[in-house]
Amino acid sequence: MKIKLARDVLESNDRIAREVRDLLSKRGILSVNILSSPGAGKTTILEHTIRDLGGGIRAAVIEGDLQGTIDAERIDALGVPVVQLNTEGGCHLTAGMVRDALEDLPLDRIDLLFIENVGNLVCPASFDIGESRRVVILSVPEGHDKPAKYPPVFATANALLLNKIDLLPHVAFDMEFLRASLARLNADLPVFEVVATVGRGFAPWLDWLRDGIRAAKEG
Amino acid sequence: MKIKLARDVLESNDRIAREVRDLLSKRGILSVNILSSPGAGKTTILEHTIRDLGGGIRAAVIEGDLQGTIDAERIDALGVPVVQLNTEGGCHLTAGMVRDALEDLPLDRIDLLFIENVGNLVCPASFDIGESRRVVILSVPEGHDKPAKYPPVFATANALLLNKIDLLPHVAFDMEFLRASLARLNADLPVFEVVATVGRGFAPWLDWLRDGIRAAKEG
Repeated sequence: MKIKLARDVLESNDRIAREVRDLLSKRGILSVNILSSPGAGKTTILEHTIRDLGGGIRAAVIEGDLQGTIDAERIDALGVPVVQLNTEGGCHLTAGMVRDALEDLPLDRIDLLFIENVGNLVCPASFDIGESRRVVILSVPEGHDKPAKYPPVFATANALLLNKIDLLPHVAFDMEFLRASLARLNADLPVFEVVATVGRGFAPWLDWLRDGIRAAKEG
Repeated sequence: MKIKLARDVLESNDRIAREVRDLLSKRGILSVNILSSPGAGKTTILEHTIRDLGGGIRAAVIEGDLQGTIDAERIDALGVPVVQLNTEGGCHLTAGMVRDALEDLPLDRIDLLFIENVGNLVCPASFDIGESRRVVILSVPEGHDKPAKYPPVFATANALLLNKIDLLPHVAFDMEFLRASLARLNADLPVFEVVATVGRGFAPWLDWLRDGIRAAKEG
């Protein structure tokens, strides 16, 4: 596990994002930017996803957090390469931070790179970090009104994991309201209903990732 | 209900925050800045708090959201003055936005002003908006590690509402870990355990507010 202070550089984020995307694309690596509120289950989903993918798929993770290494330690325990980025208060990762982290990853031995952004439903939406896919996680206890209230992150996502669906019987959650909001914002968004703590409902999500990995290899 | 586009002005946020604080202080109004992740229960807590306070306490609310009026409509239904601020993507309120909203509130008929910030555990921590008290809400499903991972908002709070404690039997939540993190960050922080949807556990929180209102009146 590597730990880096994430320092922003005085270059255009979009220019660096293109550079990161080109670099990963040339190597046939699928990169997935993971966005959510704090506590929606990003790291737990990564843990189960990495364990369950199988098929010789080699994953690596970049962990974005304000400070600390709680998440990177959890990923490190799985035995996959991980770089912890500490933004020191910054509310999102930038392409420059990701480019910097790539220097510490064995890019010739990676098929799938997860980039876990800072827990935040607002700031990360505006920053391209060079990812191939953007995945947003919404957890049931956060409520059905989140896409309506925080539209950009949902409008720009390539897939949505609806986590903690085992809590549906215990909270007021209007699935029709959620579906209607998503239809307005992002009509073709695939939605995977899961319980990350036990890996329930993961099969379609893993298939979606495998399709992406195949496409990245074929370039 | 008033709806405003929140535009930032080219003045120092801290200078305007002092101006807002002076203005509210002279009128004996207690102002409370409410911070949390998206979906932790800010608006639900305000609904029950405003209903249950009693004692002739006159409340008003400023609602901060990226866009829309979902939250302000809920407060409006209670019959208390409310101004909706739309930040159009901005991840926090500023003192200038609050000063602007005050023009639309009947300040001579308010004892308690709630300012519901944008749902975000990062950005709002760095912006003084002229409040007398800062209250952070953490909901149990977000997990016990949130203060350790997002320290500034917890370190600068005057009170913590731990919401959705009815979900404790259904999730993995380490209360000792939470208590230890809070002890390190903010040793004297009052913690109120509540279930906002039904107003459970609200009595000590309401007493804390009443003490603050009394202190604000006494200047």
